[in-house]
Amino acid sequence: MLHPTIDPKAERKIVATGLPASPGAASGEIVFSSEDAETAKAAGKAVILVRIETSPDDIHGMNVAEGILTTRGGMTSHAAVVARGMGKPCVSGAGTIRIDYKTEKMTAGGVEFSKGDIITIDGAAGQVLQGEIAMQKPELSGEFQALMGWADAIRRMAVRANAETPQDARIARQFGAEGIGLCRTEHMFFEGDRIIAVREMILADDEAGRRKALAKLLPMQRSDFAELFEIMSGLPVTIRLLDPPLHEFLPQSDEEIAEVAASMGVSADALKRRAAELHEFNPMLGFRGCRLAIAFPEIAEMQARAIFEGAIAAGKQTGRVVTPEIMVPLVIAKAEFDLVRATIDQMAQTVAKETGETIPYHVGTMIELPRACLRAAEIAETAEFFSFGTNDLTQTGLGISRDDAASFLGRYTAKGILPADPFVTIDQDGVGELVEIAAERGRKTRPDIKLGICGEHGGDPHSIAFCEKIGLSYVSCSPFRVPIARLAAAQAALAKKGD
Amino acid sequence: MLHPTIDPKAERKIVATGLPASPGAASGEIVFSSEDAETAKAAGKAVILVRIETSPDDIHGMNVAEGILTTRGGMTSHAAVVARGMGKPCVSGAGTIRIDYKTEKMTAGGVEFSKGDIITIDGAAGQVLQGEIAMQKPELSGEFQALMGWADAIRRMAVRANAETPQDARIARQFGAEGIGLCRTEHMFFEGDRIIAVREMILADDEAGRRKALAKLLPMQRSDFAELFEIMSGLPVTIRLLDPPLHEFLPQSDEEIAEVAASMGVSADALKRRAAELHEFNPMLGFRGCRLAIAFPEIAEMQARAIFEGAIAAGKQTGRVVTPEIMVPLVIAKAEFDLVRATIDQMAQTVAKETGETIPYHVGTMIELPRACLRAAEIAETAEFFSFGTNDLTQTGLGISRDDAASFLGRYTAKGILPADPFVTIDQDGVGELVEIAAERGRKTRPDIKLGICGEHGGDPHSIAFCEKIGLSYVSCSPFRVPIARLAAAQAALAKKGD
Repeated sequence: MLHPTIDPKAERKIVATGLPASPGAASGEIVFSSEDAETAKAAGKAVILVRIETSPDDIHGMNVAEGILTTRGGMTSHAAVVARGMGKPCVSGAGTIRIDYKTEKMTAGGVEFSKGDIITIDGAAGQVLQGEIAMQKPELSGEFQALMGWADAIRRMAVRANAETPQDARIARQFGAEGIGLCRTEHMFFEGDRIIAVREMILADDEAGRRKALAKLLPMQRSDFAELFEIMSGLPVTIRLLDPPLHEFLPQSDEEIAEVAASMGVSADALKRRAAELHEFNPMLGFRGCRLAIAFPEIAEMQARAIFEGAIAAGKQTGRVVTPEIMVPLVIAKAEFDLVRATIDQMAQTVAKETGETIPYHVGTMIELPRACLRAAEIAETAEFFSFGTNDLTQTGLGISRDDAASFLGRYTAKGILPADPFVTIDQDGVGELVEIAAERGRKTRPDIKLGICGEHGGDPHSIAFCEKIGLSYVSCSPFRVPIARLAAAQAALAKKGD
Repeated sequence: MLHPTIDPKAERKIVATGLPASPGAASGEIVFSSEDAETAKAAGKAVILVRIETSPDDIHGMNVAEGILTTRGGMTSHAAVVARGMGKPCVSGAGTIRIDYKTEKMTAGGVEFSKGDIITIDGAAGQVLQGEIAMQKPELSGEFQALMGWADAIRRMAVRANAETPQDARIARQFGAEGIGLCRTEHMFFEGDRIIAVREMILADDEAGRRKALAKLLPMQRSDFAELFEIMSGLPVTIRLLDPPLHEFLPQSDEEIAEVAASMGVSADALKRRAAELHEFNPMLGFRGCRLAIAFPEIAEMQARAIFEGAIAAGKQTGRVVTPEIMVPLVIAKAEFDLVRATIDQMAQTVAKETGETIPYHVGTMIELPRACLRAAEIAETAEFFSFGTNDLTQTGLGISRDDAASFLGRYTAKGILPADPFVTIDQDGVGELVEIAAERGRKTRPDIKLGICGEHGGDPHSIAFCEKIGLSYVSCSPFRVPIARLAAAQAALAKKGD
């Protein structure tokens, strides 16, 4: 309802089908790399980014593309998740398409396409179509607004959005988000000069070197946060400290390594060695989340300073008090949370002393590992809020990597072993029980603890009904899903009353 | 007490130190590859396998080496875990040593060593020493036997061993193991002709192709099992169905791929393509365990047939009834277990019909994922035993990859965030609670359910005390740890009585 769709009267020349990974339709010239997507976009062209699969390196290309097409990966692959987050059409896992990056050609349905040829993708149907096709634009009609008004009057849970860019934050507000439930700060680290400073930090030999690089990042992070706080103007904003493993920020291929090394003035060998050192067998279970803040407190310090200084700046700009909610990711123990919290509290005092401004703030944690659910009573002694990271909780609770699930998960739902894709609809019997245990134990220690959900499930109606049942305070989802979440929260509230 | 040690009067010329990853001492010529280890061993030489880190491909080299030295990896790295399992000395993470595989040289403590130079490692002290050093052999004295006798009279829990080779099974019996708690069938897949058949199966385009390759594996698996059952002569043997992701069986480097492709008569490109298809971002959370049996039931069928036919053969040989315990790994739901169990039950009937022999057997599951702990009541409806796979339960419960933990886990124990390395001593507050939940729920459905543990923790005294506390039936550990487990089980039983 909220995305452009293909005109129902238009003729469709389908050349391949894949999974309907993110709704909406888009036409554009084929590009096979994120660099080409950016160049074409800069030249005013609309492009469809076509990749075998996408990785965090492709964020830029995805950002400028009208739509994304991959030949590998399921409903929960990187391409699918990021596209849904961006509100862009995506067809994933179109396995019959053969891509040749070298010759910049692909074949689909017996047709050979070259870079620059135009295709259309229908992300709701999972179709890949030849040529440009007529579209219908969505209209946010008065009826839509009325419906949303009714929903808002009925629902109990707040609805927030997962957003980090000013663009996403504005869309979220347009769609009625009542705050940001998850700002993934690492997404701010990829642009322009930042990625260079991030890489300098990673390659630094010691704390002094890391601090030097972090000092370059500070003003950029500060203005990021200030802008976000301004857009959200007094609404709550939950900022998660750096989460992914550091190797995600380093170049991977030999060409990229050579390029980055040259631009940084370091040897390609040194860069390769550091990348090899940081390589992990299971990055999902590796050196990430607050493990980074425990090892390198200076990173959390810089982020906390940027948050507090950004909040003060935005407060002056908007005339409203900004109360940042700082979220520590991947916690497994109270002692671990307390160490990171101490760094944040210390920085709050430092900034208060330097500026003479008092900064209201909350520090809480993402509950996303089974052990955190079990130790929730202790963690809640010092954590002021819990946000359930149900993506990672699903990965660890079920032992299923989201990025690798495509090879077997389909069989699991087809055979009824699992009632639904657990990354789309929360697995109530497993992950749901973990969430319930954590909510119950957390409330026992801190009866008024704020509980939310910020995994992909925050935008899924079935999962939202579960969140209502166990009494969460809010759900947070990608901006384009906010209207659906508002409706679903109202339906869930009605259903609960009916019980 | 059970391993050779360095003569206390000998002079030690230490060139590097690392972690005391597996006790005992050994001297030998340096080799830098598993192939060289095998060649040298075949020529009657004693070797120390020196690697930056080891992978499952190195199992052969590790098997023939007197000891293993790595420059990377912690107490729970692949090298450390496998070496402890094999009862071989290992020093891991000796970070100051620089290895150059190309020139086949390493530098340690300012000394350059070439392939063939002799070093000694002391796995109890974590030391690397230049040259050969005098050793003392252990003696299993009469006092030792008396002590063990007292322990056996006191302890309640049975002690089994994790073993798959005849050699390990014999050592296990010598040390007093009362059965095999974990036979990892994949370890049987790497040798000689087997790995070729395994690779044929993986590369097969369809079920028919897989069945053809599996038919070649069947006689080898059958004789493996028959031999194991004979050695254990009537004692219980728990056999786990194929567990690791299939890509572990494919060659990785370009040279190996070319070699394997040539020997198999397939193109290197086809082999590479299949390896790329099977590549996983987080193999630990990927397409493995019973997910393989769900996708390719023919693999479980072949293994079940080999187990039943092997049991019949061994029963005739020894005159004792063999009752195999077949274990389904990585279960998350009852429906999943039931599908695999149906394949096994069906094969039991087929073999009974073909041979006219009734085969007593039990089918149970490895409880190694948080969701399995929570769903234990249902799973116990059809699973006759649970064996707690606490390695994987630690990985998922805490969100920590064993292979990647070295980069941050040291800080966690040093700062007191975790009381001990959770891969060495069970994390009672997290993993322990999951085990307790599973035991309680499993017993509710099936009061006499047999409960054991087969993770690394089965050989750790603190963890054994926990197993006694929650009333497990047995612990299973690597053969060399069996005597310690017998003692620890006795101490735990005494302590419990004292409470």
